[in-house]
Amino acid sequence: MIIDIHGHYTTAPKQFEDWRRRQIEALGNPSKPPLLVDYTITDDEIRESIEKNQLPIQRARGIDLTIFSPRAGGMAHHYGNAVTSEHWTVACNDMIHRVCTLYPDNYVGVCQLPQSPGVSPKNCIRELERCVRELGFIGCNLNPDPSDGYWTDPPLTDRYWYPLYEKMVELDVPAMVHVSMSCNPAFHGTGAHYLNGDTTAFMQFIQADLFKDFPTLKMIIPHGGGAVPYHWGRYRGLAQDMKRPPLTELLKNVYFDTCVYHKPGMELLLKIVPEDNVLFASEIVGAVKGIDPETGFHYDDTKRYIDEIDWLSAARRDKVYQGNAFKVYPRLKARLDKRAAVQR
Amino acid sequence: MIIDIHGHYTTAPKQFEDWRRRQIEALGNPSKPPLLVDYTITDDEIRESIEKNQLPIQRARGIDLTIFSPRAGGMAHHYGNAVTSEHWTVACNDMIHRVCTLYPDNYVGVCQLPQSPGVSPKNCIRELERCVRELGFIGCNLNPDPSDGYWTDPPLTDRYWYPLYEKMVELDVPAMVHVSMSCNPAFHGTGAHYLNGDTTAFMQFIQADLFKDFPTLKMIIPHGGGAVPYHWGRYRGLAQDMKRPPLTELLKNVYFDTCVYHKPGMELLLKIVPEDNVLFASEIVGAVKGIDPETGFHYDDTKRYIDEIDWLSAARRDKVYQGNAFKVYPRLKARLDKRAAVQR
Repeated sequence: MIIDIHGHYTTAPKQFEDWRRRQIEALGNPSKPPLLVDYTITDDEIRESIEKNQLPIQRARGIDLTIFSPRAGGMAHHYGNAVTSEHWTVACNDMIHRVCTLYPDNYVGVCQLPQSPGVSPKNCIRELERCVRELGFIGCNLNPDPSDGYWTDPPLTDRYWYPLYEKMVELDVPAMVHVSMSCNPAFHGTGAHYLNGDTTAFMQFIQADLFKDFPTLKMIIPHGGGAVPYHWGRYRGLAQDMKRPPLTELLKNVYFDTCVYHKPGMELLLKIVPEDNVLFASEIVGAVKGIDPETGFHYDDTKRYIDEIDWLSAARRDKVYQGNAFKVYPRLKARLDKRAAVQR
Repeated sequence: MIIDIHGHYTTAPKQFEDWRRRQIEALGNPSKPPLLVDYTITDDEIRESIEKNQLPIQRARGIDLTIFSPRAGGMAHHYGNAVTSEHWTVACNDMIHRVCTLYPDNYVGVCQLPQSPGVSPKNCIRELERCVRELGFIGCNLNPDPSDGYWTDPPLTDRYWYPLYEKMVELDVPAMVHVSMSCNPAFHGTGAHYLNGDTTAFMQFIQADLFKDFPTLKMIIPHGGGAVPYHWGRYRGLAQDMKRPPLTELLKNVYFDTCVYHKPGMELLLKIVPEDNVLFASEIVGAVKGIDPETGFHYDDTKRYIDEIDWLSAARRDKVYQGNAFKVYPRLKARLDKRAAVQR
């Protein structure tokens, strides 16, 4: 089984993003109540959005299952206030749930959280609980910068975040640390803010004792870990200079995905990061859409790079393609078992 | 000749940093005039600071010449105002000039700029001109984020920066795009802000036509280009999706240094970035000070990694070690010729 742990619903029906636009526009008139969900989206419209985009790509590449979450750039937690974020987040997660219900063999859900800059992450607990307990989701996306480009909230290791971590541990779900859009003109979204977010989070984890306080908490750093594997020597050296534990300690809790869009980068990732800490992912339909003229294949066809690495043993490959996903998302197996039972 | 293009004077005599601390403290009392330079540092003190630190390391590693600039983390442009920054910058550059005068065979200067958040880069022209024309410096360090962690100034491609670029072109000096300290608790300095700055700058260059407007402007992205070579496929794909020119166009103006602190990272850099665009550097005495227990050598002994790469031809190695430095810093040759003439 091949599991892609990082897919976003970037092709949701038009009226969905339209509503979001109107919700944001309505913020300009604070005397009015917030805009509640007023769109209708049929199952057929959802089917069309999936069957014309995500699913055929996934099938053509041999990906059996995608761990699926709302569009990351769309989370845009900086708009409005906590209520704005909650309404939008519930809507996004409900859409993911509908996709997972329509395609239970192909998608398992990961939720967006109703974060808002300066608002306690306690505020996310209710929605996380709803998504995991009621909708069968198996993880969440955690935005380390709800200001979307100005980094005004405390580091992820601050006690500010602890109430959310307590709930994650209780529910046994990991977080993918994933920023959203950038509203800072200095940072391009997918070309700078995303990778910076990954790099920043890893360094925050080096600096503090988060995983001493939460030994079973699991964090996935997407996009191949930002700059981290390329600068592994720098991080090993910094940890040493700062008298922090070696990176191997951190790897009990921190994982990387394989969203690296060329073979030499993928090789570096798999050479540097131990085999137990890399999870297959491609972030489709995602950040980079084109075909690489050098290979004739899509940049984001990450499975191809992995398949081409001849020094990667079958056992290691299997961990990357599925074994580590079952370990990092403990609720995944139960979810699939339940599905199998339904089918029997 | 082996040229390290990225060294900072991190070991300046104590009274120098003491004065800086007092200068910043004095900002707390706006009724008082800014604190002017009031320290005395003898040539012997400078010699000691260099001969106990930078120079023996350099010699042991076979580095002939270091392109030397003030401590990057110390630039700290966010403190005070433009006057604060100017006083501190002049003091820093004067210190570099003294080192270069005492050790003309080993150091050539690159200047700090008197940047200040929200203050036009026009303000930097006078000091750049003084350093290049009067002190014989051959380049400058350009901080893309004078706010030191909040990124409140426009992208480097904005016309805001153009007056400075006009002067750089006129003087024929490149800039190393180098952030300073981070006062944002989310960003560790050398472990996040530095690499994020590199990644961010490269993406800014992809997005705009800066080098159409300044075809001879040269920018060096340090720390191996942040996340860029590791994510080369992502950048190629983003440029393509955005209908921007291919990265090869950008490489007419953009260069990377070799401050990558492990061999697999260095191999990736030299495999991905064309040989004409990589300049040898180690950033001593710098970000990472320790000895790597896996190799028995210092993490920042970057020459060792390059020397160990057996597929790198002698011609390519020579470009990295010196050829590209003469190309990117056009004033370097004249500076060395002048020195040779003095010696004859």
